[in-house]
Amino acid sequence: MSNAHRVAMLGTGLIGDFYTMTLHGQRGRDRVQVVYSRSQERGAAFRERWGVPESTTSIEEAVGHPEVDTVVVGLPNHMHLEAVEAAAGTGKAVLVTKPLARSAAEARRILEVVEEAGVFGGYLEDLVYTPKTLRAVASTRSGAIGDVLWVRSRETHPGPHSAWFWDAGQAGGGAIVDLGCHCIEIVRSFVGKGNRPVEVMCWADTLVHPIEAEDNAIALIRFESGAVGQFEVSWTFRGGMDLRDEVAGTEGTIWLDHFLRTGFEMFTSGEGGYVAEKAEAEAGWQFPVGDEVVELGYVDMFTDMFGAMEEGREPAETLYDGYVVNAVMDACYRSAQTRAWAPVELEWRGGTAPRVARTERREDGLVVIKEEHLPDGRRKLILKDPASGAFLDRVVG
Amino acid sequence: MSNAHRVAMLGTGLIGDFYTMTLHGQRGRDRVQVVYSRSQERGAAFRERWGVPESTTSIEEAVGHPEVDTVVVGLPNHMHLEAVEAAAGTGKAVLVTKPLARSAAEARRILEVVEEAGVFGGYLEDLVYTPKTLRAVASTRSGAIGDVLWVRSRETHPGPHSAWFWDAGQAGGGAIVDLGCHCIEIVRSFVGKGNRPVEVMCWADTLVHPIEAEDNAIALIRFESGAVGQFEVSWTFRGGMDLRDEVAGTEGTIWLDHFLRTGFEMFTSGEGGYVAEKAEAEAGWQFPVGDEVVELGYVDMFTDMFGAMEEGREPAETLYDGYVVNAVMDACYRSAQTRAWAPVELEWRGGTAPRVARTERREDGLVVIKEEHLPDGRRKLILKDPASGAFLDRVVG
Amino acid sequence: MSNAHRVAMLGTGLIGDFYTMTLHGQRGRDRVQVVYSRSQERGAAFRERWGVPESTTSIEEAVGHPEVDTVVVGLPNHMHLEAVEAAAGTGKAVLVTKPLARSAAEARRILEVVEEAGVFGGYLEDLVYTPKTLRAVASTRSGAIGDVLWVRSRETHPGPHSAWFWDAGQAGGGAIVDLGCHCIEIVRSFVGKGNRPVEVMCWADTLVHPIEAEDNAIALIRFESGAVGQFEVSWTFRGGMDLRDEVAGTEGTIWLDHFLRTGFEMFTSGEGGYVAEKAEAEAGWQFPVGDEVVELGYVDMFTDMFGAMEEGREPAETLYDGYVVNAVMDACYRSAQTRAWAPVELEWRGGTAPRVARTERREDGLVVIKEEHLPDGRRKLILKDPASGAFLDRVVG
Amino acid sequence: MSNAHRVAMLGTGLIGDFYTMTLHGQRGRDRVQVVYSRSQERGAAFRERWGVPESTTSIEEAVGHPEVDTVVVGLPNHMHLEAVEAAAGTGKAVLVTKPLARSAAEARRILEVVEEAGVFGGYLEDLVYTPKTLRAVASTRSGAIGDVLWVRSRETHPGPHSAWFWDAGQAGGGAIVDLGCHCIEIVRSFVGKGNRPVEVMCWADTLVHPIEAEDNAIALIRFESGAVGQFEVSWTFRGGMDLRDEVAGTEGTIWLDHFLRTGFEMFTSGEGGYVAEKAEAEAGWQFPVGDEVVELGYVDMFTDMFGAMEEGREPAETLYDGYVVNAVMDACYRSAQTRAWAPVELEWRGGTAPRVARTERREDGLVVIKEEHLPDGRRKLILKDPASGAFLDRVVG
Repeated sequence: MSNAHRVAMLGTGLIGDFYTMTLHGQRGRDRVQVVYSRSQERGAAFRERWGVPESTTSIEEAVGHPEVDTVVVGLPNHMHLEAVEAAAGTGKAVLVTKPLARSAAEARRILEVVEEAGVFGGYLEDLVYTPKTLRAVASTRSGAIGDVLWVRSRETHPGPHSAWFWDAGQAGGGAIVDLGCHCIEIVRSFVGKGNRPVEVMCWADTLVHPIEAEDNAIALIRFESGAVGQFEVSWTFRGGMDLRDEVAGTEGTIWLDHFLRTGFEMFTSGEGGYVAEKAEAEAGWQFPVGDEVVELGYVDMFTDMFGAMEEGREPAETLYDGYVVNAVMDACYRSAQTRAWAPVELEWRGGTAPRVARTERREDGLVVIKEEHLPDGRRKLILKDPASGAFLDRVVG
Repeated sequence: MSNAHRVAMLGTGLIGDFYTMTLHGQRGRDRVQVVYSRSQERGAAFRERWGVPESTTSIEEAVGHPEVDTVVVGLPNHMHLEAVEAAAGTGKAVLVTKPLARSAAEARRILEVVEEAGVFGGYLEDLVYTPKTLRAVASTRSGAIGDVLWVRSRETHPGPHSAWFWDAGQAGGGAIVDLGCHCIEIVRSFVGKGNRPVEVMCWADTLVHPIEAEDNAIALIRFESGAVGQFEVSWTFRGGMDLRDEVAGTEGTIWLDHFLRTGFEMFTSGEGGYVAEKAEAEAGWQFPVGDEVVELGYVDMFTDMFGAMEEGREPAETLYDGYVVNAVMDACYRSAQTRAWAPVELEWRGGTAPRVARTERREDGLVVIKEEHLPDGRRKLILKDPASGAFLDRVVG
Repeated sequence: MSNAHRVAMLGTGLIGDFYTMTLHGQRGRDRVQVVYSRSQERGAAFRERWGVPESTTSIEEAVGHPEVDTVVVGLPNHMHLEAVEAAAGTGKAVLVTKPLARSAAEARRILEVVEEAGVFGGYLEDLVYTPKTLRAVASTRSGAIGDVLWVRSRETHPGPHSAWFWDAGQAGGGAIVDLGCHCIEIVRSFVGKGNRPVEVMCWADTLVHPIEAEDNAIALIRFESGAVGQFEVSWTFRGGMDLRDEVAGTEGTIWLDHFLRTGFEMFTSGEGGYVAEKAEAEAGWQFPVGDEVVELGYVDMFTDMFGAMEEGREPAETLYDGYVVNAVMDACYRSAQTRAWAPVELEWRGGTAPRVARTERREDGLVVIKEEHLPDGRRKLILKDPASGAFLDRVVG
Repeated sequence: MSNAHRVAMLGTGLIGDFYTMTLHGQRGRDRVQVVYSRSQERGAAFRERWGVPESTTSIEEAVGHPEVDTVVVGLPNHMHLEAVEAAAGTGKAVLVTKPLARSAAEARRILEVVEEAGVFGGYLEDLVYTPKTLRAVASTRSGAIGDVLWVRSRETHPGPHSAWFWDAGQAGGGAIVDLGCHCIEIVRSFVGKGNRPVEVMCWADTLVHPIEAEDNAIALIRFESGAVGQFEVSWTFRGGMDLRDEVAGTEGTIWLDHFLRTGFEMFTSGEGGYVAEKAEAEAGWQFPVGDEVVELGYVDMFTDMFGAMEEGREPAETLYDGYVVNAVMDACYRSAQTRAWAPVELEWRGGTAPRVARTERREDGLVVIKEEHLPDGRRKLILKDPASGAFLDRVVG
């Protein structure tokens, strides 16, 4: 309880708002002490909006603030490295928003800066921390669905709110960099962080928006265990924001819906003077979520980050994880260009993972392919004769 | 931020666990300082479980603890009055779990004790504080669904975990007292706290369990505005816990699902060594929730309580609200016995509410009953001739 | 296969359209031969619309048509008796739409007319025949959910399409007569047709529309077994048409959604020139159903009716069932007036039903109230000492 | 109505059962006259089961039956060509189950045989005919979701019921051939049959079962318009059968669920003696469908086939479509081997499709990338300066 953190928030965009709403929310003990913005005006508005004591247009002043022990980097992607360099030098904890960088090389550099400075580093990948994901990952680890075979992560909406994110130069890419980064970590959380992403197959296209960057992409990620991750990202989705994950295992299945179908449904004729937020239409069926900063993982993310700092352990999402994500995204862009599977090039620290496998079962010397329970209590077996290779079915008592 | 509260927790049952999990959860700044239990053993186990500094078997010692500023009453229903009397005398804030008491008379006495002592009082009705409910109520107040006509609240599960709750003498009743108390406040939150509950029609029966108290009940509550609330409670539900609310208004509809269908679905064959919590079966489709203390409203509830204490305002749920709930439940039991509508007898502090009404619209002197949009762009009107009383339909351009 | 029926369709409204769409749909072998309408114009339009050979403005001519073997009464409620009298005299099968009549007395007269004529009679209550309901009822009868305790049937929409239905004089009432009649048969199908509806408690009000008839009603129906049926009907629902049923049994639960959430979800921006049918809004999320005449039960209903005629058995829905429905609705109106439970007055032909009961189980001489499985494999029992009446809990190995 | 068809059913497996259940169901006028099976015993059992007049072990006898006008090929994949050759020679209509063949070459040969014989041919791809799909495709064609960008079709279950289907030699492959064939036609129905499938990227693996064929596969299909189809097939899914489709368009979104979440939910404790069909577990939450032969498209499929024969038009699913499906699947297997995009090699008869495109919109000479409606009624524009390439945002009145 002695540990109430004081934060320097770098950036006043949507993500800075979400982070501060989380830190200052409920009965939280941590506070943003100073906010940095390139614009004095936006800094002042942010200060006002969230009751933050100070604002500045100098990164150095923000990160060097004597009462601050934690720097949160919530700036556009192309400014991450510079900000981390400034912060790491102060010896303070550095937490960086997603994606970590515009490329694996840049992410690698960020990682080195922090590791060389010996400061605490954390990767602010919120969607891995949604309460549903945390529980689903825990169930997966406890064996509820057996070996993980396939994980799909979908993240689609009608495109980002900030102008800079539409500019591939500043952002490092399009929908893959914006949304795929979440999906990759969600996939890794289910297949296991020690399961190396080996290669990637990716399709990307600019189907709708008048931009250079991809507005739609789908990728498959093959892991060492044989498991396959899949992400589907889009900046052209109609109907709100679609955040869904699915996991298939040898013994079970998990389906997660984080946004559009979470048990809150509202129809409004639009004649009551009501203005819907975030929905595409002002009338009709709407699907709000309860508490967004909880449901999107921000609350549990900061709890883990500060908890890790206090307990001297690594957070669940490290800057190394951010680097892995960038390495996978780099492979995605290469695959989209070569139109073939592309290897994920990265310095791997995660060990090795065994191949997905189910013990072969035999009855009377025949391999059991499948067993069905019939309504009369008997079992129907699909069998394979290992000698002849012939398949047969047999009903047994 | 100066306000970190120290709590005396009275009771070590399921509700004490939930409250403490909430207070000590995430980055919360408040802490339970001392726990009271009738049993030294249970007190010690609780202290251990939650990292609470002290435990005691003396209520007086707990409520009189010098570092404590807030007393939380989480005891069986028949002990609420006694505990409140002890706490109120200390001048500390008193927060009482639901239901407030076993009857309106007893609730009235609790209210008087606290009001006479002039201390802060709060009614710990968590389900009114679920994030979905808070947003839905806010949307309702902003006009999204027009005038509220009907609210249904369903709360069913296979029966309580504690033995004392099955004993009508200690609990004050059965499923109505256990579950209906939540429903009544949910209904009131949507129809408006200033909308007087006028009368009640209730059916109650003991269909399954070998007990005296009702294990199933349904009630209608008629409010001054004409709106109708409805609750359905059961201790015999199969399939988990069903918490759903529905609101119908003149301009819209709201459906809330707090537990069984919230976007988290898992199938498990049961062969992975996994043990499901809270589900009725260990294999098959399961429907966990994300973060229970968030989803069930505990987090926002304590935020409101402590916020109210700090800001010198009333919490959203006052002890008076708890008294109203008991008055409605008393009427339910009377109605179930008389088999007719029973008036809600209570000292009303809430003002008056106007009758639900929609402005009558006319076309060509005829009353418009309904307007439908046809696929060809024309409108079909159902009209009533106010002179003759005749109904007719007419398609207009 | 020799049995291709020729139908005289009385009435050209929405229900006549649905019936004929069903009969003439898919690979059906039955056909409407002649249609009767009070208006020559509507009759001609109907003939054209459905490829019906003949139309007439004479009921006698329609029912007396030499090629016709089946008369379908799809007229406004106040014309049913007259039409049945005309049809029964011809010796042909008489199928009557829902509700059978405006009152139990009128329904009783219809029943007598048909029984005295000795012709085949069927009650066209479609919603009991939805494929989901048929399977759910079959599962219930096979023991899937144990003894039925409670059945809820919801039917709500923004009000009928035909002017006459808004006129209580012609219709016999409002939303109860229009929608409650479906609900009552759905409830009876689950609790068992041999389970006598004993008494009724009903609330009805006219909350929104400028009419005399009720636009909202809720009723509880107590059956001989102790099971309770519940219906919720409304002509003021916003958001489409809500048709949902729920069944709670001692060993299970059934939830049916027939319209708004059936696995077909569509968002449309409304900018593609698309015109939605039946949805309240032309843009936003829509929830169409697949094949309405299947999903609403019309297909299975006519299959049962013609199958019964051919096999010399009673259909699942007889005119007697229609009479029971009217008797329950009469009790609803009486209860709404007297504001107390009202007995269902009817000539009962259905036998007797035993009280819902679960065998009492004991361990060590104590009554087992509830058994919970703990994560560690042990069981927690809530027990009652039959001698002292005391409740206790005990964890066993 | 004169057109009641008499069918020779070749094959007595699950698909023959489904087809006959459909033809003989409800008020259908068509009948199976003779059934062919390689085994006299299975033929006799089928005859008994469905009330079919005759059975035979001679294909020639079946297809040559004088009362038969339609031959339905419901045999294992490797027997299709032989059966079609026998049937086409008789001049009767030939309807072939899915997949048409084991390869595009074999499918091409089947197509030629039928076209040379000049007889009516139909491809029995049922899932394109589900009522939901028919309505969703119709809405798509009428502009409800704008230009189609992406279609996903998921078909997964725990593996086929018949032994031969596990043998790649007889089946022509594994999950792709069994399930992917459905998905490909679903995708084509939404992107348009005239939209050429250009190339394919496919991953396939044998993750769980001890077989040679793939038990899991994912593929992307790029169409001439730029739209992308995606299929996900698996023989290792746990939890039932998952049939879901999703369509994303420039103006809307469609989600279809055909099996696991269709509005029918049942929990059973398993203690009522009830035996669940088709569910993996006998207790717990189950998700039955209403009428399977309707919901899986069989009813509308035969209605279209016979309607096409009677009206002298092509059915919605022709043998040419079956050939296209085989050509796409061939490309999938090639891509899975080459680990790169593989061209779809086929004789294309479908014309050309324009590129997906949205009209570029400008304000003040700047390209509008995105427009958001703010709660205060103003609009936020994300804009691109076509001269400088810079992105900016602007709030306008």
